[in-house]
Amino acid sequence: MTSVKTNELLQKGRAAKAAARRLAYLSTEVKDRALEGIARGLLERRDAILAANARDMAAGRAEGLSDALLDRLLLDEQRLAGMASDVRAVAALPDPVGEVFDMRTLPNGLVVGRRRVPLGVIGTVYESRPNVTVDISVLCLKSGNAVVLRGGKEARHSNGALAALVREQAAAAGVPADAVQFIESTDRAVVDQMLKLKDCIDLLVPRGGSGLIEHVRDHAAMPVVAGGIGVCHTYVDRAAKLGDAVRIVYNAKVQRPTVCNALDTILVHREVAGAFLPAAGAELAKAGVELHCDAASLTILKSASGGPGARLRPAVQEDWGKEFLALVAAVKVVDSLDEALQHIERYGSGHSEAIVTEDYSAAMRFLAEVDAAAVFVNASTRFTDGSQFGLGAEVGISTQKMHARGPLGLREMTSYKWIIMGRGHVRP
Amino acid sequence: MTSVKTNELLQKGRAAKAAARRLAYLSTEVKDRALEGIARGLLERRDAILAANARDMAAGRAEGLSDALLDRLLLDEQRLAGMASDVRAVAALPDPVGEVFDMRTLPNGLVVGRRRVPLGVIGTVYESRPNVTVDISVLCLKSGNAVVLRGGKEARHSNGALAALVREQAAAAGVPADAVQFIESTDRAVVDQMLKLKDCIDLLVPRGGSGLIEHVRDHAAMPVVAGGIGVCHTYVDRAAKLGDAVRIVYNAKVQRPTVCNALDTILVHREVAGAFLPAAGAELAKAGVELHCDAASLTILKSASGGPGARLRPAVQEDWGKEFLALVAAVKVVDSLDEALQHIERYGSGHSEAIVTEDYSAAMRFLAEVDAAAVFVNASTRFTDGSQFGLGAEVGISTQKMHARGPLGLREMTSYKWIIMGRGHVRP
Repeated sequence: MTSVKTNELLQKGRAAKAAARRLAYLSTEVKDRALEGIARGLLERRDAILAANARDMAAGRAEGLSDALLDRLLLDEQRLAGMASDVRAVAALPDPVGEVFDMRTLPNGLVVGRRRVPLGVIGTVYESRPNVTVDISVLCLKSGNAVVLRGGKEARHSNGALAALVREQAAAAGVPADAVQFIESTDRAVVDQMLKLKDCIDLLVPRGGSGLIEHVRDHAAMPVVAGGIGVCHTYVDRAAKLGDAVRIVYNAKVQRPTVCNALDTILVHREVAGAFLPAAGAELAKAGVELHCDAASLTILKSASGGPGARLRPAVQEDWGKEFLALVAAVKVVDSLDEALQHIERYGSGHSEAIVTEDYSAAMRFLAEVDAAAVFVNASTRFTDGSQFGLGAEVGISTQKMHARGPLGLREMTSYKWIIMGRGHVRP
Repeated sequence: MTSVKTNELLQKGRAAKAAARRLAYLSTEVKDRALEGIARGLLERRDAILAANARDMAAGRAEGLSDALLDRLLLDEQRLAGMASDVRAVAALPDPVGEVFDMRTLPNGLVVGRRRVPLGVIGTVYESRPNVTVDISVLCLKSGNAVVLRGGKEARHSNGALAALVREQAAAAGVPADAVQFIESTDRAVVDQMLKLKDCIDLLVPRGGSGLIEHVRDHAAMPVVAGGIGVCHTYVDRAAKLGDAVRIVYNAKVQRPTVCNALDTILVHREVAGAFLPAAGAELAKAGVELHCDAASLTILKSASGGPGARLRPAVQEDWGKEFLALVAAVKVVDSLDEALQHIERYGSGHSEAIVTEDYSAAMRFLAEVDAAAVFVNASTRFTDGSQFGLGAEVGISTQKMHARGPLGLREMTSYKWIIMGRGHVRP
């Protein structure tokens, strides 16, 4: 069994590597034509894709997947339309490959610049969300990279249908057919094989839970760009507009609680806690959010008491720094901006952090001092997203500092080479 | 013994990590004052530094180090002046930290940009060349990074004197004293300890021979940016100006043969081999260069015969793709630009590659198709260097595509965070 699977992976990895060299020189026109075909196909083949997804959903329910996982797995017309729109947004972006930047003439007359080039073959191991198959494929194609996709078992029918669409449309547009490789096997052993395939895969981007990401980071033989674990705080400063604060906190927690940029902990300045918490608590209760409160916030929320369904619990130590991925948030009252910054430094995962304030200096300090991939003033952390940031889509969200940080778009899937033009120049 | 050394490393690593947070907010003025002090100190303490270097040179000769290693180890007044000048060049460059780029207002009114931040703690393991101690220290300081330096045993007195100077001048300028850490122990076990110290060291940059670099790349727990192995080709096209070609080849081979950007293999188009090779051979013979020739070039060079000292040998398979680090070059006659490109793809190390040509299309193809950190037209590969490229100095030269490629200057020692400014924005 394993040897068959190893062979599938090896064969597809080598095919991707061979395709990568040709992909690097593909014209923008051909690449954009492929993307347009994929966008069109997502809408035209809606029924087949949704049928494949329904099989995954049924299997997932039968296996007792959590609501969070089922929500990640689900495709519907709206999500397919969103995917197609993201593909068109990527097609509309400039081709990063071949861009020359930092070009200048040195005092000795040498002309020196940098020219953007693809990375080669991107490998990705991902869980549940089937849109990842399309997002990563189109970003890799447009940035001239080949890709080896290894999706999760739960989404195998959805991913298979989407990958088949991508490969067909790519080939129809004139892209080498081997540029996008989809690994059929859902055997866990394939992931470990993939981690060793450094001759075929230049960069690995794992997307999924912390277990998967840590496993990949610890065992991959090739470079890894990883992140995705989001322990996200929103700090309501004493100078916050409280109406904005309630809307931002509500949006960050409720709009899609199962994703990494959703709010996990509310920090609120003591001076406004008495006004903010009851208002926020009432709104969050409407959505069924459970609040794990420190002593001060619990007292305030209890005495303000109960909109219907307001579920309060005393916070335990494990609530700080926890990624809930559910309609649960931790709440803590702080005495100062400094205390909020220290809490975020200690418990944040370096993903997305927000302050709500009208105080200019507090906003500037928060932007300067918080060490995270995305730092927000007066906006919901839910905006940390390649599509929302204008990158069309994302290969992943990096919480590391090396290579790229935050949403990985087209430019983040490239490297550069120095180009130097002389007229017989020799070094003195 | 080992536990004492582990303790030195651990203690210094932790001190660097603690200093890194303060370094990230240091004013440009303080950092530049430290760099100016270091530049001045290199000149004022010349005698002490050269005396320390003389001890290393004597020990190296006694141990029978090769000429290549002794040349790398040597400091003299000229090299010290060059180092001071590089430090001042770095001081004169803009501070990368805090630079905001790609800032724009999205259609929904969110203002999104990226703000440059330091990486944290840079660890470096390097061999022989003592100028590396200063180059890396000043680039790290100016880019707001702390650094843990682990130099080679052969240069321990030189490195110790230089690191002491850097630490003193940094402290005198108001930089946290722990920002620059120099590991005294020359025990090999310390390197392996360092490779595991991922809680203290954010990025490791090894500089040295291929053995060291491969060892670090294979065993480091933290990200590595590596390169330095340079198998460099110069292709003399049929449309080359032969006078330029001779000067460029001579410079690339002879000006400093012991470094990674020196020429290893001369490729020459068959149509001009008869004119170019005797002229180049005569020049190279004057410098004592030994040529390992394929059959065609051997025939031409033998029949042109002998300037005094022209040392010719038939090439063996191992000569292709070999980094000589000495006054030796391989020579091969090719039938076309395509054959040259294929040879470079097969045998190059992705460091520095050059073409000499007046043919516009050949030059453009070479720039586009050669996959290397630095690609030259009509210039010597010896220019691949942070200082020569206008970066002031270099932490190393990367031949990988991830994070940074080619000479690592100030910007390459940074990451960024996304900053997002809203007015109560929530995600629809």
